[in-house]
Amino acid sequence: MTKAKRLERVVALALELVSRPTHLFSFSRFCEKFDVAKSTLSEDVQAIKNGINLFGLGDVETVAGAAGGVRFLPARSAEDDGAFLLTLSERLMEPERVIPGGFLYMSDLLFTPHVVSRLGEIFRQRFADSRPDYILTVETKGIPLALMTARAFDVPLVTARRGSRVTEGSSVSINYVTGSAKRIETMSLPRRALPAGARVLIIDDFMKAGGSAKGLCDLASEVGAKVVGTGVLITTSEPAGKMLEDYLALLVLEAVDEQKRLTRIHPLVRNE
Amino acid sequence: MTKAKRLERVVALALELVSRPTHLFSFSRFCEKFDVAKSTLSEDVQAIKNGINLFGLGDVETVAGAAGGVRFLPARSAEDDGAFLLTLSERLMEPERVIPGGFLYMSDLLFTPHVVSRLGEIFRQRFADSRPDYILTVETKGIPLALMTARAFDVPLVTARRGSRVTEGSSVSINYVTGSAKRIETMSLPRRALPAGARVLIIDDFMKAGGSAKGLCDLASEVGAKVVGTGVLITTSEPAGKMLEDYLALLVLEAVDEQKRLTRIHPLVRNE
Repeated sequence: MTKAKRLERVVALALELVSRPTHLFSFSRFCEKFDVAKSTLSEDVQAIKNGINLFGLGDVETVAGAAGGVRFLPARSAEDDGAFLLTLSERLMEPERVIPGGFLYMSDLLFTPHVVSRLGEIFRQRFADSRPDYILTVETKGIPLALMTARAFDVPLVTARRGSRVTEGSSVSINYVTGSAKRIETMSLPRRALPAGARVLIIDDFMKAGGSAKGLCDLASEVGAKVVGTGVLITTSEPAGKMLEDYLALLVLEAVDEQKRLTRIHPLVRNE
Repeated sequence: MTKAKRLERVVALALELVSRPTHLFSFSRFCEKFDVAKSTLSEDVQAIKNGINLFGLGDVETVAGAAGGVRFLPARSAEDDGAFLLTLSERLMEPERVIPGGFLYMSDLLFTPHVVSRLGEIFRQRFADSRPDYILTVETKGIPLALMTARAFDVPLVTARRGSRVTEGSSVSINYVTGSAKRIETMSLPRRALPAGARVLIIDDFMKAGGSAKGLCDLASEVGAKVVGTGVLITTSEPAGKMLEDYLALLVLEAVDEQKRLTRIHPLVRNE
């Protein structure tokens, strides 16, 4: 390969960093790949950091030492995030989303990659201090959101199954109360999915009474993992008292009027 | 904002393109955002294309005209993809993955973002000519793989539910035969999820007899959508005859010996 010009090399380096957010890439690996000395690489990294900072796209962090390296941390401005969440609220209030029973149809948005990708980056920023080793969710609709949060943190996702028919080796199950129907249900996890002592961030799409999130907490405790936070895309204003106290929601659903097809939903002001 | 230097601007532009693969960004939007003339932007795009081509990371495509713009198409070399799939095969052969019943535990890999992200990009490349409007899968374990394929194509994912308890408005259900247990099961889709005439690419993690994939085909037909391809991560060598003929697999599982904890699995040579 002919020696790359600086601009081409910086582009390729930026692409590698951005393709895997939060992952710590070793300097030596990049020096080898791009055939440059460490001093040159440091200058390239500084240029990437400047561009990313200047346009409010996040940050580039370098970690010194033998186990060190460089990583990209996606983070837009609070203003950009606010605008994104406002637009999402507006889409969720579209009249045709109201379905019989006063539910909201939102699978289209929850399964649109660039929407959940952005939400995952917002969760990463808001939970940055909690340093999770794993993201935990329960099937089905929360999986894309949780996966994109896991992507933003560069950690694996663990997905609990509803019911106890797990065919993935020995499993651990708990019973939980669904908030809406007040039914007792079961959720399960393969025992090997979550090691004891792991730091776990719970992510789900929707919280009403908080039964699912509480169930996920119990499941994590059952295997000796430590819950370091709970994030949901949407919480309902009623009931005000949830089954768990400490959670962070991005949007709040005030009311759905099935007759008039009117929904009230808005971003929650960042509580920190 | 002070006017950015060229290098900083190119980095920010590359990041925007790479953050949303295959999405066509309009030139005028970028001209506005980066405060440059179209001629300058074209030079920047060319530099990004050069860097991405030179290091075998994909391509940058420009589309002329009023509805035109620029997009990033992720694609690694056949050699890189081959090495990635070989490493994945080796991990899947780890003895501790063999679980009672001769199943393979692979949820950890299927829920690791950077693994499924790479697989999604491989599927995008192999199905580039099929131009899907939607990716279709069935819950649960195939969702991350299908979501990352949807991300690579910049299209929404649609997820069928097992059973018929869909609470998302009117739905369409079909019965299908599970290949392994020869049971009749049901899968459902909200009627509004997939418009008639849509081009649909089916993605799933595992194919044995092909019952699930066949069911997804039937479900797509039921709403008048057109299946343009079927991709699975792993197919089994037995049974050789599947319930659908036309599919593409990345890996083939030859055998699992539960007693000896031996698995034989390898990449399929690209069949085109």
